[in-house]
Amino acid sequence: MTMQFQRIKGAEDFYPAEQAIREAIYAKLDEQARKFGFQRVDMPAIETIKLLTAKSGEEVRQQIFVLEKKGTEELGLRFDLTVPMTRMFVAKQKELPKPVKWFSINKMWRYEAPQAGRQREFSQLSVELFGSDKPEADAACINLIIACMESLGLTNKDFTLRINNRKLLEGLLLEVTSQDKLPEVVRLVDKSNKIGEVEFAQELKKLGIDLQKIEVIKKITKCQGPPSILATIRSELKPNALAMEGLTELENVLQFVDKKYITINLSIARGLAYYTGNVYECFDKEGKYRALAGGGRYDQLVQLLGGEPTPATGFAIGMETLRLLLEEKGKLPKVEIGTEYYIAPVGETIAKAIEIATALRKKNTVDIDLMRRSLTKQIEYAATIGAKKLVIVGERDLKEGKVTVRELATGKEEKIPLDRIQG
Amino acid sequence: MTMQFQRIKGAEDFYPAEQAIREAIYAKLDEQARKFGFQRVDMPAIETIKLLTAKSGEEVRQQIFVLEKKGTEELGLRFDLTVPMTRMFVAKQKELPKPVKWFSINKMWRYEAPQAGRQREFSQLSVELFGSDKPEADAACINLIIACMESLGLTNKDFTLRINNRKLLEGLLLEVTSQDKLPEVVRLVDKSNKIGEVEFAQELKKLGIDLQKIEVIKKITKCQGPPSILATIRSELKPNALAMEGLTELENVLQFVDKKYITINLSIARGLAYYTGNVYECFDKEGKYRALAGGGRYDQLVQLLGGEPTPATGFAIGMETLRLLLEEKGKLPKVEIGTEYYIAPVGETIAKAIEIATALRKKNTVDIDLMRRSLTKQIEYAATIGAKKLVIVGERDLKEGKVTVRELATGKEEKIPLDRIQG
Repeated sequence: MTMQFQRIKGAEDFYPAEQAIREAIYAKLDEQARKFGFQRVDMPAIETIKLLTAKSGEEVRQQIFVLEKKGTEELGLRFDLTVPMTRMFVAKQKELPKPVKWFSINKMWRYEAPQAGRQREFSQLSVELFGSDKPEADAACINLIIACMESLGLTNKDFTLRINNRKLLEGLLLEVTSQDKLPEVVRLVDKSNKIGEVEFAQELKKLGIDLQKIEVIKKITKCQGPPSILATIRSELKPNALAMEGLTELENVLQFVDKKYITINLSIARGLAYYTGNVYECFDKEGKYRALAGGGRYDQLVQLLGGEPTPATGFAIGMETLRLLLEEKGKLPKVEIGTEYYIAPVGETIAKAIEIATALRKKNTVDIDLMRRSLTKQIEYAATIGAKKLVIVGERDLKEGKVTVRELATGKEEKIPLDRIQG
Repeated sequence: MTMQFQRIKGAEDFYPAEQAIREAIYAKLDEQARKFGFQRVDMPAIETIKLLTAKSGEEVRQQIFVLEKKGTEELGLRFDLTVPMTRMFVAKQKELPKPVKWFSINKMWRYEAPQAGRQREFSQLSVELFGSDKPEADAACINLIIACMESLGLTNKDFTLRINNRKLLEGLLLEVTSQDKLPEVVRLVDKSNKIGEVEFAQELKKLGIDLQKIEVIKKITKCQGPPSILATIRSELKPNALAMEGLTELENVLQFVDKKYITINLSIARGLAYYTGNVYECFDKEGKYRALAGGGRYDQLVQLLGGEPTPATGFAIGMETLRLLLEEKGKLPKVEIGTEYYIAPVGETIAKAIEIATALRKKNTVDIDLMRRSLTKQIEYAATIGAKKLVIVGERDLKEGKVTVRELATGKEEKIPLDRIQG
């Protein structure tokens, strides 16, 4: 039979076993966010195109799933959670006590070519902190990423946080490039790890940057190492005022985070229009996968979306890459999806079996035969779905006021009085 | 300031307090579904238009949020969870042990005029049971609805289940109407509670049904009452073979459910193309709101979506109406969104305060000052966000190896050694 109806490309169906694993991961992320005092919010999947394109302009529109126009406004599916949460913040900015600490675990959609760790429909934990310009706010976000990873059994052997500061990077670059070329140079620096040294130099040359300056940019980009390299940057790269401001911001955050997880990496920029200060991305230690998480300070976004100027910082952890890494490291949460009990009526005992199921459900998960199958077939099914105990409700036992309870793993059987099981 | 960016019409933002209430309700529904042996699944929000319109034809297309075409296939947002779950079932039908018992709690989208209890984006618990044609399968669904409502504190004083059977209704109607007019008559019967007796009669007349037959149809529609009225239906309405089959199906289910929750109501039909046997809707007892839940047997859908013929039964509970009823009855879950602790550094103690927060987070939810505010302002904020205990980290206390812990509700204070709080 050919399948008439396929699911869409770049999105997944999650059957019970996989769904249970994902729920267990989400539960950990949710728990950690709450432990840090973040509160969960939820918002529509659909937003106006005007909102969705406000931050990054029409170019992101290509990636948006746009809806056919029915009313007066153009609508589309959200591609992140930061923009909708910022809209929510702006809508109640006056009445909300600051700082506002929110998170959401939700789906989003981007029309891109699907690849490993990147789907068209995907899920993230997104954490936003509005109202604080202090380094401890950035540190809270970084510490929460670390706590999330640790709660899933990952350590500094498995992941690292690459940290940079936009002011530091831009200050250093402005010594060898003009303001008008800066956005394009930053974009290339951000891509430099992916495109390789030769292409990186070629692209810079195309911008009209001379060879000597390209060498300086390459040197900046290669500033990657433990927090101690900040001293080297200070002494060797001769930071100007802007770069010094960024360097100080970076150092201020580092005093509040666990430095064994931190790598300084001046090539991290995280897109163009968004981030204003410290930025970071979390990668698996071997650099095999796409980023596990990314975030930073975005002090302009609230104002851009119509709010009063408000400092903000936040991050997102993507589900797909995290799941890939957890699987590789053998750290996927162990889940059980079978019920505690499976009730097997034998003969004309269905009504009584349902009664027993209802009683056991006060405290347990309970499945029951719905097919009027033979006991043998029922036991097969109960084993397949992973039930732990079988309750055989037979006519003869019932006359004695009893049922037979069998541990499916061991085969151990016991006759138990009805009043004890229904109690 | 005028708001530049509004959320879309017919969809809601859920701020933390409301989100917590909804999560508590979802948690109850999720727990009950699992207690009945249903397993949670998840699936894309986007499906092909071909799938979405397969069941009900192009007419539902008006209600679908259709996406602008980017690839070769027309895509849209799901308007229920039954169709996507049935697609998932069909995709793995051969390998899945039957019966398959799934649920999903998820959002869906319909382009309709928003009204009380009906949004364009809304959430449902949807429960599907594939593979059993037995009455105990329908009964499991009905009992699960009842268990969900009871778990939220609702009783038979608050809600009732109106049950009917499509074969019973259609068999009775076929005595006074022709097969070709049947779908339209069923549609009118389904609407009869809403449109009133006069309009109901007028609409039937428009179909060319004579007055005497309209009286019979009105009589059928008014068969509403406790399960005992099934005897009356049997004796007075002279059911034909089809109607008798439906009546028997109905009676077979009733033997396995708690009849204090049940009302027989021959006007319940639940749409046209979908249901094949028993159907039911759950309403608040006073009939003030739209249906809280609805479901029934849909033995044709699997085949219609390309699968092997498979009996199926299921239901959905809508979040919006349920929440309205719970609020009216004073049964909204009580939720607390504040943290256990709020850490208030005073003076140069931020790094130590963060250490204390980290230690307390092993077991607790912990917020901490991120604004470097005065103690007075910190206490105000901690109270606003609903924190329970304040930990004041002051320089003098720290020298003695202590912090001050204050219960915010009582003002009771205690000095506690650091090693006890960080333990």
